[in-house]
Amino acid sequence: MTASPVSAAKTYDLECSVARTLEQVGDRWTHLIIRDALYGVRRFDDFQADLGIARNILTKRLNRLVNHGILRKEQYQAHPPRYEYRLTEKGRDLVPILMSLLAWGDRWLADGDVPLHVTHTDCGHQMHAVSVCSECAGSIDAFNLEPAPVPPVIDAIRRERATSP
Amino acid sequence: MTASPVSAAKTYDLECSVARTLEQVGDRWTHLIIRDALYGVRRFDDFQADLGIARNILTKRLNRLVNHGILRKEQYQAHPPRYEYRLTEKGRDLVPILMSLLAWGDRWLADGDVPLHVTHTDCGHQMHAVSVCSECAGSIDAFNLEPAPVPPVIDAIRRERATSP
Repeated sequence: MTASPVSAAKTYDLECSVARTLEQVGDRWTHLIIRDALYGVRRFDDFQADLGIARNILTKRLNRLVNHGILRKEQYQAHPPRYEYRLTEKGRDLVPILMSLLAWGDRWLADGDVPLHVTHTDCGHQMHAVSVCSECAGSIDAFNLEPAPVPPVIDAIRRERATSP
Repeated sequence: MTASPVSAAKTYDLECSVARTLEQVGDRWTHLIIRDALYGVRRFDDFQADLGIARNILTKRLNRLVNHGILRKEQYQAHPPRYEYRLTEKGRDLVPILMSLLAWGDRWLADGDVPLHVTHTDCGHQMHAVSVCSECAGSIDAFNLEPAPVPPVIDAIRRERATSP
């Protein structure tokens, strides 16, 4: 067996943007709440009725989304005080993430049975999301993206592979 | 307070593609393993050294990814038997998800300090991923997408809002 070219265990922080994103929106209830908010749900009882989630858990998840600035809480009735939860710009910007999760699930996990179709109202067609390059609008995939700087550990692995017989 | 227009608690299965996707790739170690695989890491010891993950947890995560068909296990040495983990087509197709998580995290959570830059080698520019419509290539956002069929619970909420004074 070839000795590993690396020895130091290290979780470098290069991808903390991905990890941090999952920490804010990666759990099951949270993405369902965001989905409902995108559909226009705003009130506690409506989230609760739609999702069938325990009220204490819903309270925690909504508060966390408010703390993260993904939802904002607005009073809509004074006596007794009642609040609505609205998506902020940061929350609405989750659409590309949800749509990319949906597209992959439809493609790989739905077994040909896609229960939800989405129409792009600008063009009127049933569609799925496609990810493209912000600069040239060309397609992106596992073969045409290069991180920079290359993490040192990865660089060592690549160098070893390039020089091994 | 207005009575909720809905009463039946129900998690309908319309979005199971999103939930299922998160179940397969939503945990922190899993996305880090996939990221490393996209960088070219293939061997157990290299994943372990790079991520600093406990060996038993790494074994579980790799096996799960193999079971899900996201990685495939290939023997590269017979005596003693040693294996590499390679991304399948299904695994490589996770790129749009990772790139959308990265773009959102860079935009909303990085505080102006984006430690990882990605170059699109087809055009040579530093870029981020943008989600567009598969049919017209136009932009998608929280205001121009419409699910069909609209879940009944959501439909009831919208009707009530439209008719309330």
